Amino acid sequence: MIAATFDSSVYADRLRRAQRLVGDKGLAGILIGTGPEFAYLTGSWVSSHERLTAVVVTPGSVAVVVPGTDLGDLGEAGRLELDIRAWSDGEDPHQLVADLLAEGPVGLGSSLTADHVIALRSRLRGDFVLATDVLAELFTVKDVAEIEQLAFAGRAIDKVHARVPELLRAGRTEAEVAAELSHLILAEHDAVDFIIVGSGPNGANPHHSFSDRVLRAGDPVVVDVGGSVGVGYHSDCTRTYVVPGAPAPADFLEAYAVLERAQAAGVAAVRPGVTAQQVDRVTREIIAEAGFGDLFTHRTGHGIGLSLHEQPFIIAGNDLELAEGMVFSVEPGMYRPGEWGMRIEDIVVVSDAGAKPLNFQPKMLG
Amino acid sequence: MIAATFDSSVYADRLRRAQRLVGDKGLAGILIGTGPEFAYLTGSWVSSHERLTAVVVTPGSVAVVVPGTDLGDLGEAGRLELDIRAWSDGEDPHQLVADLLAEGPVGLGSSLTADHVIALRSRLRGDFVLATDVLAELFTVKDVAEIEQLAFAGRAIDKVHARVPELLRAGRTEAEVAAELSHLILAEHDAVDFIIVGSGPNGANPHHSFSDRVLRAGDPVVVDVGGSVGVGYHSDCTRTYVVPGAPAPADFLEAYAVLERAQAAGVAAVRPGVTAQQVDRVTREIIAEAGFGDLFTHRTGHGIGLSLHEQPFIIAGNDLELAEGMVFSVEPGMYRPGEWGMRIEDIVVVSDAGAKPLNFQPKMLG
Repeated sequence: MIAATFDSSVYADRLRRAQRLVGDKGLAGILIGTGPEFAYLTGSWVSSHERLTAVVVTPGSVAVVVPGTDLGDLGEAGRLELDIRAWSDGEDPHQLVADLLAEGPVGLGSSLTADHVIALRSRLRGDFVLATDVLAELFTVKDVAEIEQLAFAGRAIDKVHARVPELLRAGRTEAEVAAELSHLILAEHDAVDFIIVGSGPNGANPHHSFSDRVLRAGDPVVVDVGGSVGVGYHSDCTRTYVVPGAPAPADFLEAYAVLERAQAAGVAAVRPGVTAQQVDRVTREIIAEAGFGDLFTHRTGHGIGLSLHEQPFIIAGNDLELAEGMVFSVEPGMYRPGEWGMRIEDIVVVSDAGAKPLNFQPKMLG
Repeated sequence: MIAATFDSSVYADRLRRAQRLVGDKGLAGILIGTGPEFAYLTGSWVSSHERLTAVVVTPGSVAVVVPGTDLGDLGEAGRLELDIRAWSDGEDPHQLVADLLAEGPVGLGSSLTADHVIALRSRLRGDFVLATDVLAELFTVKDVAEIEQLAFAGRAIDKVHARVPELLRAGRTEAEVAAELSHLILAEHDAVDFIIVGSGPNGANPHHSFSDRVLRAGDPVVVDVGGSVGVGYHSDCTRTYVVPGAPAPADFLEAYAVLERAQAAGVAAVRPGVTAQQVDRVTREIIAEAGFGDLFTHRTGHGIGLSLHEQPFIIAGNDLELAEGMVFSVEPGMYRPGEWGMRIEDIVVVSDAGAKPLNFQPKMLG
């Protein structure tokens, strides 16, 4: 079992740190709509569809703007001693926000939608920046309790992958395998986030989900699965398998040996002070030097926490320095259109001793 | 059965009409991220998490900006003869959009998130407006094929409500009822959108979902359920019930008679040329005149289509004139905190003869 909530003091502390960052960076305030960033600061996953619900943090105050109809759903955020500003249909919630903010730049949470951004823009006296950047050191550096949740999620998805080899039999469809994976994920998590079963040529689409394609002996199969646990932290782990009964294609096996090396080298390159793009470069160069550079068509990884994809993005151009407590995926892949795909993905935590993986399933094929 | 896609010519026609509106309103273009508005224009429900996927419509062109990794998931949009602009991790998709747009105001789809809005802002030469407003006549006025889908959804949810009385038995929990509702919704729809079972005092929270509260004889119970069908159109219907075995509270029964009158009067007020806020005023005045005005804490209704909540919002301050083919809910409610709630909701289509309901389940209690 893993805690389903953190203590109220955790959120009070996060909000205080957010206030300090807002002041330090000279902002009038930040406004974070519902979603993972709102849940990080308040403990609440409340959603109110198109009606504005947001936490507004200024150097001197923290307020929650919420439709009166959703007051009862604030959950943890309702238990914090915050300034709750309920509004009713027919009132102007964007003006309510504007009244809370002095003149100056305002940080917006990344998931706030354009209908709200445009309505705020005509009521605010200051430019917009991304609150996600302003609070980056809060969001990207996980504390011990967060890492415990992510480690629990890692073990949960490892247990799912441990069962995958028995599911991959010639004659079954990807969809049949996915249905069983759905049960296995739910047995270890609170919710299923996504399921990818990419067999044969379907594996060459990195964002394939699953289809009615029938598995054949010798097919490479990319299985990328994730769920969420506890307070809302995610797992995300990929392994590539071969359906038993025939050997995988020779060019696939040759490339896979390179991928294993590249993924291990990417993990080994992780340590505090290294930039995100340096880790990307390590995996990419190994794959390119082996002649497969064209087949590695995406970034090496992404941060993970209450969001499935967040900073640090492990990608060319991202000169963010890795720091202890950052958590992200290292997941190079190769995709030969019309033939096969492959990807190996582990979640790792940055520690002073380098990367500490949160996934431990073996990477050898079949 | 209901069609799961429209013909490609439907989307080609919508895109042509969007181009005309963009030109007529003097915009450089509009940019619509993934979600219901993207699906309306392209037929595709592709999602790409934080990576930018958008359709960019200018008076002279239609382009789809999409991560290369998601090309295979474009579905219907991939079959249209559009200018597909794939981008890879490490490239700048916001600059790709900027390069497609001349100087001038740009309309943004309502679901585009702030991370993209802020990145676009520094690359574009023109102000932002809401594309949802620019294309309002497209999104709000449903054609015959769309109304057929919404009518199918209405019949589907009616079949669910027809089974509710047998589920509401003293001694069962709201969660047990919700689990059965989930199966009933899925039997008639492609997906469950939401389930509210608000018994006794829980009914007083309009956005309650369901809990472990045990139903008691005589409890009023608000049941608000919806699912999606076909191309992605939603159902949404509320009825209020009383758990058999004891009479409901007298003040509840008195108020319910008023609610029935208010809801029927709201529906009767619907016709082309009437404004959205006039319909809201009709239901509100009847409830206020009966002395229950404080208990009706939300708008009268919302549009419905590929979004669950969209224009026309039936709310004070909305002077949008209703037109033939608009589809929305009429759903006044009353909420007595700590005691009970009640709501009656039907979806209606505006026709030249007035409102044509898409829901037909009886409204008498019990």
